[in-house]
Amino acid sequence: MKINHLGIAVKSIEESLKFYQETLGLSVKDTEIVADQGVEVAMLPLGESRIELLQAIDSTSPIARFIEKRGPGIHHICIEVDDITKKLAEMKSAGIKLIDEQPKRGAGGHLVAFIHPKSAAGVLIELVQRTEGDSLEH
Amino acid sequence: MKINHLGIAVKSIEESLKFYQETLGLSVKDTEIVADQGVEVAMLPLGESRIELLQAIDSTSPIARFIEKRGPGIHHICIEVDDITKKLAEMKSAGIKLIDEQPKRGAGGHLVAFIHPKSAAGVLIELVQRTEGDSLEH
Repeated sequence: MKINHLGIAVKSIEESLKFYQETLGLSVKDTEIVADQGVEVAMLPLGESRIELLQAIDSTSPIARFIEKRGPGIHHICIEVDDITKKLAEMKSAGIKLIDEQPKRGAGGHLVAFIHPKSAAGVLIELVQRTEGDSLEH
Repeated sequence: MKINHLGIAVKSIEESLKFYQETLGLSVKDTEIVADQGVEVAMLPLGESRIELLQAIDSTSPIARFIEKRGPGIHHICIEVDDITKKLAEMKSAGIKLIDEQPKRGAGGHLVAFIHPKSAAGVLIELVQRTEGDSLEH
């Protein structure tokens, strides 16, 4: 397992890049619109992981609601696992509250599922299983 | 550069381990009291990074204040750099608001410094430079 990425909710990717790119020294490798999450994503590799800056593309986006409630900041941690279906089944048996009981297709065609923060000490955790032929190196 | 660790503010390390250790499958490699931050830290390696569960040891701890304001959740991201003094000087020149203008000794004897969330899109970022002879592999 490893940290696949950290999702950071930002008001503006362009504004945030002044820090993350120009000052911290990371680079944008890719950008993507994930329509069903209502977000534009900028991906900045960092070691074996990456930072994802998440900007809402409309006011119904979960990222827009997150920023409205809590302000910009870290939205979720995404952890890469080998077998997401098995992991979700184990978690369900253990009584963990899952947002997605079955994996769905996320950015880059990966299989993803979210665990409810109530079951993970207040942290929104996404699991991802990389699939062959997906469009991202990370 | 890489993600050195993610700091997660928890009410109880013992309670949180039910998820992070028993369910998610990570293991506690080390625990440490960092007295000047008022925290007990449990370190759980995850790929080249680790998750740090942070529990306040008294009510004046920044972690106690964080949980009081926002509830448990992700407290900070720690990014490993080669030369922390140089990076801090560059950031200061660029007008970045720093919590620590000079590095100080953190857990394991590493040199660490915090950047103010106002300058980093709402995220509390810690920089760390690993020093020779420090007590942690990570």
